[in-house]
Amino acid sequence: MHWSRWGDPDHTTTLPAGATDLMALAFGEITPRPAVPLAAVVARLPTLAPDVADRLAAVVGADHLTTDLSDRVHHTRGKSTPDLLAARSGDFSDAPDAVVRPGNDEEVVAVLQVCAAHGVAVVPYGGGTSVVGGLVADRAELHGLVSLDLCRLDALVDLDEVSRTATLQAGMLGPQAETLLGERGYTLGHFPQSFEFASIGGFAATRSSGQSSSGYGRFDSMVVSVTVATARGLWSVGAAPASAAGPDLRQLVLGSEGALGVITDVTVMVRPVPAEKVYETWRWESFEAGAQAMRTLVQDDLNPTVLRLSDETETSINLSDPSAIGLSDAGGAQMVCGYEGSADRVARMRAEVAATLRAAGGQLAGEDGGAAWSDGRFAAPYLRDALLDEGVLVETLETATVWSNLRHLYDEVLAAVTSAATRQGTDPLILCHISHVYRAGASLYFTVAMRESDDGIRQWAPVKRAAGDAIRAAGGTITHHHAVGRDHKPWLADEIGVPGVAVLRAAKQALDPEGVLNPGVLVP
Amino acid sequence: MHWSRWGDPDHTTTLPAGATDLMALAFGEITPRPAVPLAAVVARLPTLAPDVADRLAAVVGADHLTTDLSDRVHHTRGKSTPDLLAARSGDFSDAPDAVVRPGNDEEVVAVLQVCAAHGVAVVPYGGGTSVVGGLVADRAELHGLVSLDLCRLDALVDLDEVSRTATLQAGMLGPQAETLLGERGYTLGHFPQSFEFASIGGFAATRSSGQSSSGYGRFDSMVVSVTVATARGLWSVGAAPASAAGPDLRQLVLGSEGALGVITDVTVMVRPVPAEKVYETWRWESFEAGAQAMRTLVQDDLNPTVLRLSDETETSINLSDPSAIGLSDAGGAQMVCGYEGSADRVARMRAEVAATLRAAGGQLAGEDGGAAWSDGRFAAPYLRDALLDEGVLVETLETATVWSNLRHLYDEVLAAVTSAATRQGTDPLILCHISHVYRAGASLYFTVAMRESDDGIRQWAPVKRAAGDAIRAAGGTITHHHAVGRDHKPWLADEIGVPGVAVLRAAKQALDPEGVLNPGVLVP
Repeated sequence: MHWSRWGDPDHTTTLPAGATDLMALAFGEITPRPAVPLAAVVARLPTLAPDVADRLAAVVGADHLTTDLSDRVHHTRGKSTPDLLAARSGDFSDAPDAVVRPGNDEEVVAVLQVCAAHGVAVVPYGGGTSVVGGLVADRAELHGLVSLDLCRLDALVDLDEVSRTATLQAGMLGPQAETLLGERGYTLGHFPQSFEFASIGGFAATRSSGQSSSGYGRFDSMVVSVTVATARGLWSVGAAPASAAGPDLRQLVLGSEGALGVITDVTVMVRPVPAEKVYETWRWESFEAGAQAMRTLVQDDLNPTVLRLSDETETSINLSDPSAIGLSDAGGAQMVCGYEGSADRVARMRAEVAATLRAAGGQLAGEDGGAAWSDGRFAAPYLRDALLDEGVLVETLETATVWSNLRHLYDEVLAAVTSAATRQGTDPLILCHISHVYRAGASLYFTVAMRESDDGIRQWAPVKRAAGDAIRAAGGTITHHHAVGRDHKPWLADEIGVPGVAVLRAAKQALDPEGVLNPGVLVP
Repeated sequence: MHWSRWGDPDHTTTLPAGATDLMALAFGEITPRPAVPLAAVVARLPTLAPDVADRLAAVVGADHLTTDLSDRVHHTRGKSTPDLLAARSGDFSDAPDAVVRPGNDEEVVAVLQVCAAHGVAVVPYGGGTSVVGGLVADRAELHGLVSLDLCRLDALVDLDEVSRTATLQAGMLGPQAETLLGERGYTLGHFPQSFEFASIGGFAATRSSGQSSSGYGRFDSMVVSVTVATARGLWSVGAAPASAAGPDLRQLVLGSEGALGVITDVTVMVRPVPAEKVYETWRWESFEAGAQAMRTLVQDDLNPTVLRLSDETETSINLSDPSAIGLSDAGGAQMVCGYEGSADRVARMRAEVAATLRAAGGQLAGEDGGAAWSDGRFAAPYLRDALLDEGVLVETLETATVWSNLRHLYDEVLAAVTSAATRQGTDPLILCHISHVYRAGASLYFTVAMRESDDGIRQWAPVKRAAGDAIRAAGGTITHHHAVGRDHKPWLADEIGVPGVAVLRAAKQALDPEGVLNPGVLVP
């Protein structure tokens, strides 16, 4: 992972000509804002006591504890736009004091025990892809901060082909999981936009949802059991696919963002690698019409593997095909429908879905748009870096609600973001899509672009605040799949209520009485 | 509900001749054991202080607080076989001191506040159908025990036809929910064996699973949001169909069995009333062969609405048709497949399922067996009373595990129950079926019958203990859909681990610091 950009350091993105034209049209003159070089960054001085470092090194082996500046810089913050802006400015004041890389579950427990005993904060680090400040712990009165990198926990521990479950260690990244499972004929089917760099433990800790969630489900719905390391030992959560043995504590661990324990492995449901994959696009007169058709599909138990609908603005600038981005005049709203499975199943599902969509007024636009979406599905974060280089601030935010409230929520967020951004002196470009549907409701995913001012972090803050306020006021959840981290904490208490906060705090106190686990993240 | 039997007091069950023959064959001479008359019961003396009773009456109105013996008797314990045996012997030492019937959410909160302030235990009462001791709170040092009957909270609060969700108050019983939703064209699709007398709040509080769970899902998977009353006010849990805003606290409330708060309403997903319902039976050479076919169905996303497979013993005595119970020599294992939906959908699902089952070696046996199952689906608890009258002790227990462990778990429970029952001097009859399937695993539901000794409660205890020990040793969950109550508490700590117990206790302490909510239930 690049220290100040998304993804592969060797990957370079050139803005398509259409994007450059579009930016000029939308924002007028923009000022390129290159990142400082790595040599110019300023990191905080490490404060970890030498005897604590020695103890940690004794647990993991001297080779697996580093205090190198480069390693510390690479483990600073995640990949939200404010995180990137801070990195690009050379600000590494949030750098951890050291990076430790335990090699097994017992070493994770031992690391936590050393940190608990010495009051040192621990930030679990999987792929480093958080976009909500999930990797920015609050040191407060603690004596240092350690990044606990799970990269050595990357094994396929078990594949149960009868039960169709796989036990994957938490530090395994998405592509590695697909490769190892794929060799045995299986797939996890979990492809969030962060897929190429995100980890299994991160999927679980943040309640991730992938682009194929219509067919494969959210990550939390795939989990059979989880192992969690705490300073008091390992905790195995989940005794059966389903149970009535009290509250489902798996669902307390899923979404716990490292604040209650460190997830070391996850047993998840897997599926056979699909023999066939088809992605096609449909065109709708309006976002509203497409959304209604999506609702009909899911409420009639017709779930394509991928189901995604861009609003009129997102359709008009072709965001679902990052290589061809730019103004298009096709009009209406574009939907991507993907089908994965056996040839028979794909054919049947496709015919059933097509009949419903046609009856609802959709027009099949063929497979070219679907292929473009599939080719570019992990490209958007690279595009963001290219835009930041040019002086365009781009950030995303997301929510979910019931179907009857979806349009209201959409309108309110749009209005709030427009008004807040305009108050910052720049008209924003706001795109939206629906990409996760449920019988009772759906998600909304917004992309906001603005001409970047001299201080992008300060420029974005009031927009984010307005969006979060509008989401909660309009009855949406503050986050559908990005998690809470530090960035969504201002709204969490409102969403879960006083008793919910009391329960979270009580669970934190029970599992982490020393308060060293990702302090300041999640728990209000 | 009858005070010492299941269900409608006017309902009488005559044992079919085949059942009588079977009992004679299995158990030799049995001694009828009639229940004592209501006039002969002995209840504990109420200990509720008059000023507390006055305060409660002031909250709910004098008409809605009773200390009548009959009312107290009717609110004593649930409907497990040990509960029935105690009631039949006239033992009402567990009777509550009073029954209060609040009329709205605010009154529930106020009742809890009075009880918290005066250290009085509160047992939430929906349908009174618990089979795990969920209604037998531990008074310990508390100053009395109140049964909080939710029967006046029985409204359909809201039906959102766009989102296909309904908000139902907790005291509404299953049939009433189906009637009210049915008038609007919808169904909940939740039909556990207790359906006729169980409540919406109870479904949620115990993580209930119905006989149509293959098609409609477990109750916990249908819940969008829940309102919970605590002594500190109302708590609204669940802001969207799906969310990444931290742990899913709905799943902490679901299964909380009245120990963390009192559920006052539940917003659940509903479906259109199916135009067509077809139930048919298939015959398999063995339980094993049928189970494998079930696994194939669910892992290939072919989910009939009802899917149920009896083992060879259950098949041989025809337990899926209570009116025709008795030895049959058809052999093999019977499966019930039910299809509900539009005519099109039923036809398509049926054809697809049939092709898979035929390929797996199943033989279609037509619709007669399916109709018999459907007609008798809520009859088993009445049958149990008739058998208890005759001196045959019948009880059920259930578990779940992953597919690869299912046969092992089955064998171990069978062996443990057989051995423990035989040590009590009576060979048991043990029947089993699979009735809830998941991609990763399935449930096992056992029915155990024995010649009743002079003290059935004492006779059953070591059998239950052996079964629970075997379930946990063989890797099953201690309960798939009956909940924990007091009866499964001995195994809960083993299942959820030391950190799980710590979290449950912490949540209890946060929401019920006075410890008055269903004390002794659930939390180890």
